[in-house]
Amino acid sequence: MSKKVLVVGGVAGGASAAARLRRMDETAEIIMFERDEHISFANCGLPYYIGENIKERSKLLVQTPQGMQNRFKIDVRTHSEVTQVNSARKTVTVKSKEKGIYEESYDYLVLSPGAKAIKPPIPGIGSNKIFTLRNIPDTDTIKSFIDKQEVQRAVVIGGGFIGVEMAENLRERGLEVTLVEAAPHILPPFDTDMAVVVEQELENHGVKLLLNDGVKSFADQGDTIDIVLNSGMSLNADTVILAIGVTPDTGFLKDSGVKLGNKGHILVNERLETSWPGVYAVGDAIEVIDFVTKQNVTIPLAGPANKQGRIAADNIAGLASTYKGTQGTSILKVFGLTAASTGNNERSLKKLNIPYKVIYVHSASHATYYPGALPLSLKLIFNDAGYILGAQGVGSTGVDKRIDVIATVIRLNGKVADLAELELCYAPPYSSAKDPVNLAGYVAENVLAGRTETFTYDELADYDKENTLLVDVRTELEFQNGHIEGAVNIPVDKLREELNNLDRDKPILAYCQVGQRGYYASRILTQHGFNVKNMTGGYKSANAQNF
Amino acid sequence: MSKKVLVVGGVAGGASAAARLRRMDETAEIIMFERDEHISFANCGLPYYIGENIKERSKLLVQTPQGMQNRFKIDVRTHSEVTQVNSARKTVTVKSKEKGIYEESYDYLVLSPGAKAIKPPIPGIGSNKIFTLRNIPDTDTIKSFIDKQEVQRAVVIGGGFIGVEMAENLRERGLEVTLVEAAPHILPPFDTDMAVVVEQELENHGVKLLLNDGVKSFADQGDTIDIVLNSGMSLNADTVILAIGVTPDTGFLKDSGVKLGNKGHILVNERLETSWPGVYAVGDAIEVIDFVTKQNVTIPLAGPANKQGRIAADNIAGLASTYKGTQGTSILKVFGLTAASTGNNERSLKKLNIPYKVIYVHSASHATYYPGALPLSLKLIFNDAGYILGAQGVGSTGVDKRIDVIATVIRLNGKVADLAELELCYAPPYSSAKDPVNLAGYVAENVLAGRTETFTYDELADYDKENTLLVDVRTELEFQNGHIEGAVNIPVDKLREELNNLDRDKPILAYCQVGQRGYYASRILTQHGFNVKNMTGGYKSANAQNF
Ligand SMILES: Cc1cc2nc3c(=O)[nH]c(=O)nc-3n(C[C@H](O)[C@H](O)[C@H](O)COP(=O)(O)OP(=O)(O)OC[C@H]3O[C@@H](n4cnc5c(N)ncnc54)[C@H](O)[C@@H]3O)c2cc1C
Ligand SMILES: Cc1cc2nc3c(=O)[nH]c(=O)nc-3n(C[C@H](O)[C@H](O)[C@H](O)COP(=O)(O)OP(=O)(O)OC[C@H]3O[C@@H](n4cnc5c(N)ncnc54)[C@H](O)[C@@H]3O)c2cc1C
Ligand SMILES: CC(C)(COP(=O)(O)OP(=O)(O)OC[C@H]1O[C@@H](n2cnc3c(N)ncnc32)[C@H](O)[C@@H]1OP(=O)(O)O)[C@@H](O)C(=O)NCCC(=O)NCCS
Ligand SMILES: CC(C)(COP(=O)(O)OP(=O)(O)OC[C@H]1O[C@@H](n2cnc3c(N)ncnc32)[C@H](O)[C@@H]1OP(=O)(O)O)[C@@H](O)C(=O)NCCC(=O)NCCS
Repeated sequence: MSKKVLVVGGVAGGASAAARLRRMDETAEIIMFERDEHISFANCGLPYYIGENIKERSKLLVQTPQGMQNRFKIDVRTHSEVTQVNSARKTVTVKSKEKGIYEESYDYLVLSPGAKAIKPPIPGIGSNKIFTLRNIPDTDTIKSFIDKQEVQRAVVIGGGFIGVEMAENLRERGLEVTLVEAAPHILPPFDTDMAVVVEQELENHGVKLLLNDGVKSFADQGDTIDIVLNSGMSLNADTVILAIGVTPDTGFLKDSGVKLGNKGHILVNERLETSWPGVYAVGDAIEVIDFVTKQNVTIPLAGPANKQGRIAADNIAGLASTYKGTQGTSILKVFGLTAASTGNNERSLKKLNIPYKVIYVHSASHATYYPGALPLSLKLIFNDAGYILGAQGVGSTGVDKRIDVIATVIRLNGKVADLAELELCYAPPYSSAKDPVNLAGYVAENVLAGRTETFTYDELADYDKENTLLVDVRTELEFQNGHIEGAVNIPVDKLREELNNLDRDKPILAYCQVGQRGYYASRILTQHGFNVKNMTGGYKSANAQNF
Repeated sequence: MSKKVLVVGGVAGGASAAARLRRMDETAEIIMFERDEHISFANCGLPYYIGENIKERSKLLVQTPQGMQNRFKIDVRTHSEVTQVNSARKTVTVKSKEKGIYEESYDYLVLSPGAKAIKPPIPGIGSNKIFTLRNIPDTDTIKSFIDKQEVQRAVVIGGGFIGVEMAENLRERGLEVTLVEAAPHILPPFDTDMAVVVEQELENHGVKLLLNDGVKSFADQGDTIDIVLNSGMSLNADTVILAIGVTPDTGFLKDSGVKLGNKGHILVNERLETSWPGVYAVGDAIEVIDFVTKQNVTIPLAGPANKQGRIAADNIAGLASTYKGTQGTSILKVFGLTAASTGNNERSLKKLNIPYKVIYVHSASHATYYPGALPLSLKLIFNDAGYILGAQGVGSTGVDKRIDVIATVIRLNGKVADLAELELCYAPPYSSAKDPVNLAGYVAENVLAGRTETFTYDELADYDKENTLLVDVRTELEFQNGHIEGAVNIPVDKLREELNNLDRDKPILAYCQVGQRGYYASRILTQHGFNVKNMTGGYKSANAQNF
């Protein structure tokens, strides 16, 4: 007998599950419920449509209910909200615009309701000038508000991906944009040293940043709105975009008996089955295992949602398929800059008390002698066994490639030594004979093998200035153009001549511009019996931290 | 006591070995011999300097002898050719411009003499209008010939990487360019179906291609030169660039007793040590192990040369380090197109009688709803156990990234199932929620699991036309715009309605534009009891083969 499968939610996870299930099972009865009018839309494209980078609205609609019917024989029911799952009798209750309230039975059920924007009960939050962005109706509302009204000043609350994308897109439409972030820095997947580079890019393009500050209240002022911040500062704008995070859209499951996490996420096993047999859940609404730390986490991203949908479908179709965890590989365009990351950052590792080491490589997107090479910074985080815990990259071009490669090594449980050995595409327009990823592998290997000891700019404050010698090994010109206070200048190329003038009893802290010459200096000094550490990432990484 | 280490050859492999050795061993005496004037130059940039994409000659010189002395305390001896290795007394004989002939002793020796252009004894080859390209003097000669003379027409002999890069660069300088290739197609690392796309790009940019034809003789005609081909065709040009491959520059080792391969390459073990203990060899001059097939091969590329130099140095410094083989990951820019490959192609696997399967994915560089998405084709070659044997990619952008990721999976001994699970960076400007690499994994998995059977356009000729049904499952419009002879058109979205009109006893061969709808059709038909195969890569791959 053919299976009857219901799917709740018709976008990334739900539509992927339904399509894959049909391919695996031609006879199943598949019904997909979607609360809204649209299915299979490009969530990730919404900010760019508002910013008019994507010109045609129709491009956002990847599939239509009719298309899903024609191609996959899927009964798509839009304007149909599932308000309840009745697991005992294996039915869902549906509130349909067209058909009213009814029950539909299932053999299997896939839940992919996604996540909705957080709207905290701040005074004045009800203003019709405050918007959140999740779907096509939200998009239409924001866009027509901006198109029609004389909107010139926007405040974006929240410096996560959606907030930053909205800030960029509104700015590109010529608005005055202020971005307010409660944390000390924007973009939670990144550590401060990388996030500040993005912050600089935003400011360079005229986005005003207010960090370490949250919203206390909103108040309409005729055609404008006041935003009062916790610091006491008050802003006035024509519109507010609220993008302070998402919460799983699982209200309809609240007292259903299905196991939920403490923030309302659905709990699943590695086959993505919930605590109810035969009921699967995927996408933004579930808790997943962090691929690196094996902890439960919530990572609302489209790639994982799509993959999970496919895996749930496979299990329903009888194909053994498991989800092995999420790395959180993510990427963001910010004007001319790309920021990407995979795995864990320092902040999350510290929270979990997981020991780690960090190195930086500041290199170029491709061979510097070929036109168009642009700076590219990689931060690599790894443990004593050589396993890679995370990586972050910032630059104008080629960042996605390097983070993808490192994400691949993480996924295959590779080590830093593998990064060193990777044989990647090289011709001058694309890379260097030693790709930045290879260099990151070399640098990390050298640290692990104890060939060089490193310190970070952060740690500099802890040193006893009296009893250490801070040596800037860059050229005299570089030194004159700015250096760390208290440093003496001995260019690496003259270091061997100066060895006898150095106090062997004093530990040396060396640094250069990016960490490479400092490493060379550390090798020379170590082998001549000095106690020396090199500042990883050099003056460039230090500078990024705004000292 | 400190080691005395000699290095023969001062560019990619040699200079890398010398620099790394100094970092690992501050006390070693290191002497680097280079026959020419320049060391550490950017071989790979030479065509682009001739083409004036790289404007400053100085940019080609990555390091100088003085720079190597200052930074790495390396005694660089240019204009110093090593003419003999006297392994019994552990010396080399040096022919120095400055110092005449002398012997220099060693404890360890690194050989990185590279490879030189093949110049076969064709009649007329001595013409001063015929050039090969390997180093700075060659570059200067070619560039000044083109700059000064009224050179308007060039013939490039050889369609390998250097030949194609030269054709592109000369064309970009406005020359009339004809490229002559003896094989049926250019670019040996690629199979025909991918190479033809590059051939089209060359022709679209005005490069004339003559395939399946070689040179019989050259003859100077005053200021021009005649090139007579094997076919009898005769060309006339102002200059000829000869780029038909390279041969190891190991003449000085010929009767030395060191073990050489049958084409003169130096044979080494996995520590890159030659048959002479303490003598290491790296780079273009050695035979390496193919990482995938474990066969001996010769792969003259800069990435491997650099890495090998570092490994040889490590071994001399007493660090255990081995070279695990070369994949041949390589990449080429051809006007607006990128072609990249890693691992083996069909041709090489066939030669070795290694069974394999092939799939294609024709996808886009990033989400198609975001501006600038361009076509991207991947070809994946794998075996029955799911291991990846090779991959090739062609497109305008994003090709390097996808081949790098697949090269990484190959290096870590991953399988096609791993491609499916990779969590790669996704935001609309960079990729799709299902990255083309994920899709390649899905498609390959479906083939391996027997969920769909595929055939290639090549194989179509073998089918019994009477007893098979060739079904084009694209739309009517697509069908009308061109289809394979003998096909009937049943759009996939109407296939379910037509099932009863199809002869169940006839095997069906389905195809669509890129292979995806054909796969959907195959799933529908298989589950309804039909015997069906889908043409992988679809009409697009078929078309690429110029039917
Ligand atoms: C503006 C924006 C930009 C983004 N950019 C990126 C990006 O660049 N990269 C990236 O990886 N991710 C991005 N994301 C996140 C990505 O879109 C999500 O991770 C992904 O869509 C999650 O898929 P899902 O199926 O879980 O939820 P969704 O795709 O949100 O689908 C859930 C659907 O379920 C419906 N639904 C909810 N409850 C019910 C119910 N009870 N009954 C019926 N229907 C219901 C909802 O209406 C919704 O349409 C972005 C998200 C947004 C909003
Ligand atoms: C035009 C061109 C473009 C290229 N483009 C690319 C590319 O895009 N990507 C890529 O991966 N690879 C490319 N390559 C190949 C790459 O340059 C080589 O693989 C790499 O340089 C090999 O390093 P090697 O040390 O073995 O030899 P080389 O770099 O050639 O160095 C060998 C040196 O040894 C010297 N020498 C030889 N014999 C003696 C002797 N007896 N005594 C003293 N000195 C001696 C030679 O003069 C030479 O300078 C290109 C090569 C060329 C010529
Ligand atoms: C449109 C949508 C329903 C399509 O889902 P889908 O059919 O699973 O995904 P795709 O269109 O990428 O097709 C993938 C399938 O085609 C197959 N395929 C792709 N290219 C192929 C080729 N060249 N040859 C053979 N098969 C191919 C894949 O193997 C896969 O099939 P499988 O899962 O059975 O292995 C779903 O992706 C969707 O709703 N997207 C919009 C919402 C969204 O994802 N938002 C977040 C990002 S903005
Ligand atoms: C110039 C040349 C001598 C440099 O060789 P090299 O010093 O080995 O290579 P690089 O300059 O890339 O430096 C790599 C070293 O710096 C270290 N390094 C790089 N960035 C670093 C950073 N941010 N922090 C610390 N160390 C860093 C690496 O770990 C590596 O050292 P290791 O090998 O001891 O681990 C050599 O590459 C050369 O001759 N190149 C031109 C010829 C050529 O390659 N041609 C073919 C391509 S066109």
